[in-house]
Amino acid sequence: MKVYGYFRSSAAFRLRIAINLKGIECETELVDLQAGDQSSEAYLRVNPQGRVPTLVDDDAVLVQSLAIIEYLDETRPPPSLLPGDALGRARVRGIANLIACDIHPLNNLAVLRYLTGRLGASEADRDTWYRHWVKVGLDAVEAMMAASPDTGVYCHGDAPGLADICLVPQIFNAKRFDCPLDGNPTLMRVFDACMALPAFDDAQPAKQPEAANIA
Amino acid sequence: MKVYGYFRSSAAFRLRIAINLKGIECETELVDLQAGDQSSEAYLRVNPQGRVPTLVDDDAVLVQSLAIIEYLDETRPPPSLLPGDALGRARVRGIANLIACDIHPLNNLAVLRYLTGRLGASEADRDTWYRHWVKVGLDAVEAMMAASPDTGVYCHGDAPGLADICLVPQIFNAKRFDCPLDGNPTLMRVFDACMALPAFDDAQPAKQPEAANIA
Repeated sequence: MKVYGYFRSSAAFRLRIAINLKGIECETELVDLQAGDQSSEAYLRVNPQGRVPTLVDDDAVLVQSLAIIEYLDETRPPPSLLPGDALGRARVRGIANLIACDIHPLNNLAVLRYLTGRLGASEADRDTWYRHWVKVGLDAVEAMMAASPDTGVYCHGDAPGLADICLVPQIFNAKRFDCPLDGNPTLMRVFDACMALPAFDDAQPAKQPEAANIA
Repeated sequence: MKVYGYFRSSAAFRLRIAINLKGIECETELVDLQAGDQSSEAYLRVNPQGRVPTLVDDDAVLVQSLAIIEYLDETRPPPSLLPGDALGRARVRGIANLIACDIHPLNNLAVLRYLTGRLGASEADRDTWYRHWVKVGLDAVEAMMAASPDTGVYCHGDAPGLADICLVPQIFNAKRFDCPLDGNPTLMRVFDACMALPAFDDAQPAKQPEAANIA
């Protein structure tokens, strides 16, 4: 099994956490997004969208981090990354999708480059945009999680799973852009609990081999 | 069971199709996004994110269209909206997530208003932005689908499912903003096949009761 990834991609970070939590052996191939590797002919033949991560499992090529993580959860041994009940799964997927659909896509590299490039936004405007979508998104997740008896040590109960896998990279991004997180005490408590686990800590961008050469 | 929705929301449109395909009886409550109903105290108590759709099933409140659709698929009788095999599910979720994460969130109402409001973008710049993200996203889906033997009458094989549920509302949006779709023959063939089904046709924005009063 091989994963194409990049240390700073949130989506690749999610998949690294999932692979660590499930204890899967996996080869990694670097796609340097800053250098434009994602737009190379060779990579576009693997993933026509030119995004990371991509998973290659035997002859199958899988795209989109959440789809890949659900696939690994369905095909690899426990621990499961989703709750055992349908309502629990819906809650976890709801949190995961809120982050993966309504926060992260607005702040990815291609979008930020469009803002400062084609739209001529200043770096300050770009950063305000970034912080705006992080804040409205994370405040919604905070409200959902603070009010719910299903919130435990982690986003859902006392075992880490798909919601935590999406939350932690988003908090890393928020910190990188100095987004205020004082209003999100539940999320930060969960973030700290996750980061105490090697599966999360080992997956963080700064601990990937390419970080030293690129950052 | 009750769904909070709005005729023009792509995410609510997805859920309407899923409900129709599965033949579920369901009450609908209008959240008029143009009028700002989504920011009312009453609605924020239901869904702290202030987005649609929200599903209320007995005491449970579920958010995020894809999470809700997976929940209905898990808890309601067939037809299933996902393939029976893990690789098939990964492919369908990959297409669904590419649309739901990488196209639609960039073009929703809140984002377009931020562009023309806070960033002072012109309407022409806003429309160019819209068409850009539709084009790069749909071109990637086209490349994935045109190359795959798994593509059938619909996105995956010969039964409609989650990928089609995401594709059709996105094509509606693309047409509404005059995005060129000549480069997406596979998607348009699938779109036409879907729209020949009452489950899709009945769910389209113009056929919702509120369309006549609001548009």
